[in-house]
This record gives sequence, structure tokens and C-alpha cells, in this order.
Amino acid sequence: MLNRVRSAVAHLVSSGGAPPPRPKSPDLPNSTSAPPAAPPQAPRSPPARAGSGSAAPARTVEARASFCRPTFLQLSPGGLRRADDHAGRAVQSPPDTGRRLPWSTGYAEVINSGKSRHNEDQACCEVVYVEGRRSVSGAPREPSRGQGLCFYYWGLFDGHAGGRAAEMASRLLHRHIREQLKDLVEILQDPSPPPLCLPSTPGAPGSSDSSHLVGPQSCWSSQKEVTHESLVVGAIENAFQFMDEQMARERRGHQVEGGCCALVVVYLLGKVYVANAGDSRAIIVRNGEIIPMSREFTPEAERQRLQMLGFLKPELLGGEFTHLEFPRRVQPKELGQRMLYRDQNMTGWAYKKIELEDLRFPLVCGEGKKARMMATIGVTRGLGDHNLRVCSSTLPIKPFLSSFPEVRVYDLTQYEHCPDDVLVLGTDGLWDVTSDCEVHSSGPSSGPRGPGHPPGPWLASPQQQAGFRG
Amino acid sequence: MLNRVRSAVAHLVSSGGAPPPRPKSPDLPNSTSAPPAAPPQAPRSPPARAGSGSAAPARTVEARASFCRPTFLQLSPGGLRRADDHAGRAVQSPPDTGRRLPWSTGYAEVINSGKSRHNEDQACCEVVYVEGRRSVSGAPREPSRGQGLCFYYWGLFDGHAGGRAAEMASRLLHRHIREQLKDLVEILQDPSPPPLCLPSTPGAPGSSDSSHLVGPQSCWSSQKEVTHESLVVGAIENAFQFMDEQMARERRGHQVEGGCCALVVVYLLGKVYVANAGDSRAIIVRNGEIIPMSREFTPEAERQRLQMLGFLKPELLGGEFTHLEFPRRVQPKELGQRMLYRDQNMTGWAYKKIELEDLRFPLVCGEGKKARMMATIGVTRGLGDHNLRVCSSTLPIKPFLSSFPEVRVYDLTQYEHCPDDVLVLGTDGLWDVTSDCEVHSSGPSSGPRGPGHPPGPWLASPQQQAGFRG
Repeated sequence: MLNRVRSAVAHLVSSGGAPPPRPKSPDLPNSTSAPPAAPPQAPRSPPARAGSGSAAPARTVEARASFCRPTFLQLSPGGLRRADDHAGRAVQSPPDTGRRLPWSTGYAEVINSGKSRHNEDQACCEVVYVEGRRSVSGAPREPSRGQGLCFYYWGLFDGHAGGRAAEMASRLLHRHIREQLKDLVEILQDPSPPPLCLPSTPGAPGSSDSSHLVGPQSCWSSQKEVTHESLVVGAIENAFQFMDEQMARERRGHQVEGGCCALVVVYLLGKVYVANAGDSRAIIVRNGEIIPMSREFTPEAERQRLQMLGFLKPELLGGEFTHLEFPRRVQPKELGQRMLYRDQNMTGWAYKKIELEDLRFPLVCGEGKKARMMATIGVTRGLGDHNLRVCSSTLPIKPFLSSFPEVRVYDLTQYEHCPDDVLVLGTDGLWDVTSDCEVHSSGPSSGPRGPGHPPGPWLASPQQQAGFRG
Repeated sequence: MLNRVRSAVAHLVSSGGAPPPRPKSPDLPNSTSAPPAAPPQAPRSPPARAGSGSAAPARTVEARASFCRPTFLQLSPGGLRRADDHAGRAVQSPPDTGRRLPWSTGYAEVINSGKSRHNEDQACCEVVYVEGRRSVSGAPREPSRGQGLCFYYWGLFDGHAGGRAAEMASRLLHRHIREQLKDLVEILQDPSPPPLCLPSTPGAPGSSDSSHLVGPQSCWSSQKEVTHESLVVGAIENAFQFMDEQMARERRGHQVEGGCCALVVVYLLGKVYVANAGDSRAIIVRNGEIIPMSREFTPEAERQRLQMLGFLKPELLGGEFTHLEFPRRVQPKELGQRMLYRDQNMTGWAYKKIELEDLRFPLVCGEGKKARMMATIGVTRGLGDHNLRVCSSTLPIKPFLSSFPEVRVYDLTQYEHCPDDVLVLGTDGLWDVTSDCEVHSSGPSSGPRGPGHPPGPWLASPQQQAGFRG
């Protein structure tokens, strides 16, 4: 699969950022289809299509099916059983048929190591068509201009405390992104700078951008330049938030217990947007060089954000936690002694006299894989977890978990690529046992091996990588 | 002066991180003095010396003299008058006598361009001796071990809204650093890892570091490794905070109006610590390569921190400001239309319907040099400003200003240096008109020139660089 992804990246570069080819198959489009002469049309798949008359297409009922593996695995009932066989740890990958994933995407997962009954992870791969909601300028749409946008989408969802959040995200997050992009269809296809202000209704006059400035010498005199790229980033950021809010609203009716890390890639108009909320990781291998496309959000990495929130909103700590960090747990008998600490502002350490409230559990503790927030969870961003409480307490974790991703942008048109170049997405299960360089150097013969590993190379894979440890 | 600094850096490298030479002169030590065989002793200068019987040496009265230029300029009354001559814009630099600044430090400043009556900036250059407060382990001090530490110190203080804060910082901040280091004298000289917990009183037994761990599998089972370096960072961070708190306490009695950006360098035990709170900048030029040693803290750079504070503590916005950012000022007639915005979580932009509260002033507005926080101030970190209010309002600015610096560490023992290598500190007045590369390539003949510029090269200089614009 690695080869396939490598060639896929090369294929994309050779297309020079042109609109992606129209998929033959709605759910599993064939990447070998020729680029269309006209702008791409909507895939025929109802789930991936923006129904123009649908008020809330991201909430369609059929999108919330029962537990399963990613649809592109095309698992038979027997395959689904094997995917849950903890003893065998079978590796799952898509069948090597003519219905390949777009961009020659590769995929591999192994069943988990017994932590949970089901594999709580999910993945998604779609080609999504975005039809403009309306003419944002108020003018009638010109027939000659493209009426929609198409983006490629890949998502990895590392579930925890249940698989529903990851399932829901894998079915709906790309639709939230599509919803956010609907208003931008015309703007993104117009080379002029995006309008800062839009009319409330189509047909009403919009505001001029430079005629309302106050005081030429004041800080109001300038207006920020907003790029097309930053609009896409904002659309993805808000899509994550809306996805999370939907989980909060519907968590009882649809049993959306648990949460998930989300790592998604959007390819749109020549640029790759990598959005990460959690501890998964994406890298691009370009001419042997590794380009990090994400960073992991853990209690250690986000210590100061968490401490600042606990400091400013102490009620969120419920009298059970202290926002200060100590290098180890403070003992009652150490009251009055001086221990190293750091607060929300510090990167260094200093000694402080231990007081009674320092005996509370620290908001952030531990190191590496053992690092925890509120002694409960090892990631600090993601979707869901609206019911998550501190162990043996009613204190909610969610206020400290952020659903916002960090989005990095890679302009494919700016770089030379070779056939071996590849974009790799993996959850922590992969990166715990495989370094960036190992992934880079892994090929069909050099890739990690384990029980049941298929004879080909591999690419993105959800959390449970136990099979690769052997 | 550039050459002198270049040779000074080379000199330091050749000493391999050994304790700095004992200065001959207390205030302006001669860098050519030979390194001592024994650990360095305290300079004779009362201001720079840690009086062992002084309970609060950082608060001595003589340290708060009236307005003047940096003492190392050794200005005569006539020179002091010329330093205030806005028309002539004389460049001030230390006299080229035998009493050179340590490390062959160079210094240049020009008078300001009329923004204020006095030059509001200050600078400081000291060799500071730190005597241990007591034996931290509780055991009697061994006579054979070094009893103190010496650090080199350089500070640039870019004042605004009055010069008192910069003056006070230039006289006292290094003493706060010394105070913070007093507890660490023995620990920093002991190669074993710093103790995590110290007894409350000398002689009392300290806690063992690994015998109080709870639950070997929990996040408590690990204890963080704390380095000597991170203790020095913590000491500098807290020194900035204590300096700021002192300004708050004494602002009425000592007329500490205004505030200042602070950029300081501490050289201690082979490492250079660069601490920055404000929009000054430090770079190291090493073999022609430029290594940034700071970043500027402006409303644009700290937008998300400021917005998060305004979001979590809306009372700090007083109903006058919105925590949202807009690319330009929203007009009342645009109510109901949709304008681009971003909140504390977003890096991208999205459209939102304009509501009544969006008409408030944005917390952060403008770009580049015109960027302002609360329409008032263009920096977001620094010391002082405890009386600063929003223009035409009683709303305090201070809660959004942070006194904490970012500290970067450069290990001089890890790199090869050549005689041209140099550490350059400059306030925004320098960097507004001179790029990193220009500073790097500037020599006696190639340096920036302007009215009154001296015929030699230059190094660190406070804000008013109008003379270099010509």
C-alpha cells in the first residue's frame, strides 16, 4: 500500500493542484479515473452528496449505523468476526480489487490488544462535493463558472471509552466540513481577496471594505488581509467544534459515549490541510526528508493551557485538584517543606513552601505515555467525552478538553515530489512503536512485521498496533 | 564596539564555560582580567553585592536614584544635556577607556525622536556575585567547596509612558535574579540532580525523592527529571514577577509610572539565558548564521492568549471590548450582515452574523507596528504599567499584560565560535530599521549611518534609533 500512496502523491503533484478527478464510485472512488474536462460533479452517493434542499444534511439518520469497521474495508461477516479476534490480532486492509481508494490510499489496522471489546477506532476516506449554498455576492450565479468544489478527505479517529464517538466522527465530520465550505464555494474560486463582510441576504448590497475606517492614524486604519487558505482553515476548525457540539446534543439519544482523537486531511484547490485534535500524528515524506504535519496534544504538551484554565476558573478544579505542577506527588508529611513546582506561566522550576492546597491532586501529572490530565485521560484535544468524569468523582473533564484542531497547510504546488513521497497518518499505537524514520524507510520488504501482517507495505492505521510489535 | 563584543564571545568560548573572571572594577569590570584560580569573589560594589545580613537587598534606598542615563556611559553634566538634545540626536556610547564593559560589551543609543521629554530607555551591565543563603541540605557548608556563584548580566529596558519603570528595572532586576538564585548556589554546583524537596529549615531531614510514590502503575509512579538549567530558568521567570510586584507595591511612593519591556541576558555556568518580556529582540551571530534568541510579544503574536483571557474573564473587558477579532472595525450599519472573525481558538477566519456586542472595540486590532491591545498599547509583556488605563476609560490594561518572560538557553560549551561571533540585543527601534542580516553584516564601515553616528560599529541600543534612519 505504501507504494500506492507514494504514487498517489506523485500523481497529485503532476496534476498541479487541478480539481481532483471525478470519482467513479461514490464511496470508494477509483483514483485511476481521468480528470474531468468540466468541474467535478457531485458523487452519486447520498451520504457524500450535499443535498441542496437538505436543511441539516449532517444529521441524516442513516449516517448513524451500528458498530462496524470502516466501510472501505468491505468486510464480510467472517472478516468482521476476525477483526474482533483479540487472540489472532488479524491485520485488516482493503481488498486489492479495482475499487481502490482515491490517491492509491493504503490502509492497515490490527485489532486491539484486549483493552476493549470492540476496536474503538475508525477511519474514513471520501471524495466530497460541495455545492454552493447560494451566490454569496447576491448576484445571480454565472453559468460559466464552476458551481461547486470537490475535496478529498481522509480521517483517522482514535476512540476511547467506547467506540461511538469515533464512529460518529467518521460518518459526519467531513459533512460538517462540507457545510462550513458551502458559503465559500464562490469565494474560493474567485482569485480576488475574500470579502470581509457579506450581505445578510442574497441581493442586498455588501459593505465596501475600506470606506468605513476610523482615524487614519489609529489602529483601526488598517484592515487585515485574509487569505483564501485561512478561510479553509477556519472552516475546518469550526467543523470540528460543530461536530463536538452535535455529539453533546445527541449523546443520550444515540448513546455517544466516550470520545476520540481526530486527525483529518483535506485536499482542496492544490493545498493539503492537516487538522489534528489529539495524539495522532501525520508526516509527509518528501525526497527522503520528513516534514511533520501535526503535533501531539497531550497533558505535557498543553500543560500551560490547562493550568491557565484551572487558574482562571478554579471552580473547574472542584477543590480536588491544584493547577500547580509538581515533579512528583506531594505527601502530607511534607507540609511546610519546600518542593519544586511550576505554574501556568513558568517553563522552569522553582521551590515553594508546601501548603495544604498543594496536597490536592495536580491537574497535570506524569510523563510520556503515563501523563494524565486530572488523573484520568492522556490526551487534551478531541471530540466527544461529554460524559467523562474524574475517576471516583462527579467532576467533568470536558472543560479542559478542547475540540479545536491545529491545522497545518502544505501547498503541493510549491514542491517537487518523487514517486516515493508519501503522506502518513497514524494514531499513537503506530508511533509508539515506529519512529518517523522507520516509517519512511519501511517498504514492502522492510516494513514492520507481526502476526498476520499482510505481505505488502502499509500506511495509516488506527491505534491498535500490537501486531507490529512482534 | 562590535569587534569588542565579537572578541568577547570568542574569549568566553575559549574559557570553556569556566566561572567568569573576577572583575577588577565592580561596576565596569575589565574583561581583560585573568580568570581566577579560585572561584570568583564578590565584586566590591555595594549595589552588586549580596549582603549576607541584608534581609531585602533588592529594596535598598540608594538604588532608586533620580533620572539618569546608564551609569556605564559615565556621562558628564554636559554629556547628559546632549543626551537629551532632540535636535542633535547625539549617539551615546561608553568612553573608550581602560574601564571597558565585561566581555568587551559594546553599547550605543541615540536620543529619542521627540516622543517624550526624556529618553525613557535604560540599560544595565553587571557582574553579580551570589552568595548562598544557607546550606540547603541542612549540613554545615564545606569550606573547600565554592561558596558562591557569579553571573554576568546585561539588560535592556525599553520604557514607555514615563522612564521610572525602566530605571527601576535597570537598577533592581538583576538583584531579584540574585535573590532567586541564592537558594540554588549549592544545588547548581552539585552535579547530582536537584533535590525535588528541601527541608523547611536547615538541619531538618529532607524527603527522599522516590519513597513516597503512590501506585506503581498510576501517573504518580513517575517523577519528573528536573535539570539545573530549568532551575535557573525558573529563577529568572520568578525574578521578573517579583520585580513587577515590587513596582506595583511602590508605584505611589516612588512615582513608578509607566512601564517597560525587558530583555536580559544571564551568563551562568557556561550557559547563556536570554529572557524577553516585550518587543525587543536578541540574536546570536555564529559563523555567519543567525540564531534567534527571543521572539517579540505583541498583540498579534499573543492574540490567542489575550482573547482566551477576555473570554474566560469577560469582566476584564468592562463591556467596552469584545474578545473576538475582526479584520477591520465593525460599523453599526453592518448589524445583521456577516463579517469575518476569529475567536481565541481559531487561527483561520470564518463569517459570523454581526450582533450588537460585536460593535464593541476589539481587544486586539491593527497590524504590525499599528497593532494595539485595547486600543492602547503595542506590547503584551513587560514590567510596570500598573496604573495604565484604556484611553478615556477607567478600565485597567494590566491584567492582559504579562510580566513573565520567555527564556531561551544557549549552551556556549556546545558550539564552535569564531572571533566575529556576537550576541546582539536591541529594542524595537533598532529592529524596525535594521534586519537581522544587516546587523550581522554591519561592521565599522558597513554599519547603518545617520546624523551623529559614531565612526565605529555598534551593538545593543535602546529604543530610539531615529539616528539610524537617515
